[in-house]
Amino acid sequence: MRAYETVLKSIETDLRSGKIKIGDQLPGERALAETHGISRASVRDAIRILDAMGMVRTSAGSGPNSGAVVISEPAIGLSATLRLHVASRQLSVADIVESRILLETWAASSADLSSDPVRSDTVLRQTADLLTTMDDPGLDREEFHDLDAQFHVLLSSLAGNAVIEAMMESLRLSISDYVSESVTSDDAWQNISQVLRTQHHSIHQAVAAGDGASAATLLREHIEWFYTESRQL
Amino acid sequence: MRAYETVLKSIETDLRSGKIKIGDQLPGERALAETHGISRASVRDAIRILDAMGMVRTSAGSGPNSGAVVISEPAIGLSATLRLHVASRQLSVADIVESRILLETWAASSADLSSDPVRSDTVLRQTADLLTTMDDPGLDREEFHDLDAQFHVLLSSLAGNAVIEAMMESLRLSISDYVSESVTSDDAWQNISQVLRTQHHSIHQAVAAGDGASAATLLREHIEWFYTESRQL
Repeated sequence: MRAYETVLKSIETDLRSGKIKIGDQLPGERALAETHGISRASVRDAIRILDAMGMVRTSAGSGPNSGAVVISEPAIGLSATLRLHVASRQLSVADIVESRILLETWAASSADLSSDPVRSDTVLRQTADLLTTMDDPGLDREEFHDLDAQFHVLLSSLAGNAVIEAMMESLRLSISDYVSESVTSDDAWQNISQVLRTQHHSIHQAVAAGDGASAATLLREHIEWFYTESRQL
Repeated sequence: MRAYETVLKSIETDLRSGKIKIGDQLPGERALAETHGISRASVRDAIRILDAMGMVRTSAGSGPNSGAVVISEPAIGLSATLRLHVASRQLSVADIVESRILLETWAASSADLSSDPVRSDTVLRQTADLLTTMDDPGLDREEFHDLDAQFHVLLSSLAGNAVIEAMMESLRLSISDYVSESVTSDDAWQNISQVLRTQHHSIHQAVAAGDGASAATLLREHIEWFYTESRQL
């Protein structure tokens, strides 16, 4: 086992036992190095890896509030990993798209609005607000993609499976550059974004009406359509 | 952007353009540090992260064959990330199990033996051999879990989606400790492994017969059964 793996293993054990919780600050570099009998450089390796995995947020400086705080953003770590494996061509964009369809249609079919009506209402109101913002034709394209991603992730959260939600978000993030690069002309983008808006509204209506089967079909068509369009450009 | 992110970004760009390929050796620490105008410590950070993501294999020493070689083992990186987020309780074991069922039943239903009959035959022969080895009642338990994982991953490869395969393997790896710890007595394990053997053979038969729907049903029952059993022990 490499020195930094000792630290990762021990942090995993402490998380499992509840000794460390989300929001806690990890002990300083020197303390961790002493506890594990390893160099401070190896401790830094471990912290960097935790950072890349979306498990800690580090801040600069050396004051009492510096150091690594435990967070949990699984999609950050998963998408960073997927991006590189897609870049190396071991994972294809087509396989990513097919996986996204599988996860999103499952989420749409499994959405259960009645299990937590207050939460469902909030999500449906937030997603409706996102669509209203996206209806603005003057919206910057970067911002559109951002709100679009939020819309999909929020809707899929109605299925109540945080793993599917994180995987879905990570799949989307891992190919976001391919997607933006593929649509290069402004005119093409205006036409495409108009279709995306219409599709989003229909998906939203189906989910709000509790019609998971229709929502799943519309989502599949929506994802496949955009993927085909961007490959043709 | 942190210094190590510059290196990750540039390696991603080089992978996408084909300038770096799987099997290539990365430039040495000193060269990378000079190219990017950053410290050797930051280069080391980047290499460690790539290692944790299953993107490079590093070897010790400083000879001409030392240094990081580009590989692509997505499941290594994905499972390392998932493990920690499961440990922090942001992702639950129940959600992981539900996701595994979704991916494995999809793979079983989508297996297409006729698209590449030679490859399908090879996979079905390899999985049959795995089951024969697992039929040995004297088999060490650790080894059983290992062969069991290989069986599931190989079978799911028949669907031809490397992303689903990697996610499935990573889900399994991320909760492997929970699974082994939950069955503690030898007697309980003897009984459980006997049922697992029978279930594996039935799943294999259904896949070999091209009956994806039955294979999917049997897989769902198999995964749910084992999860329920291990929670009760």
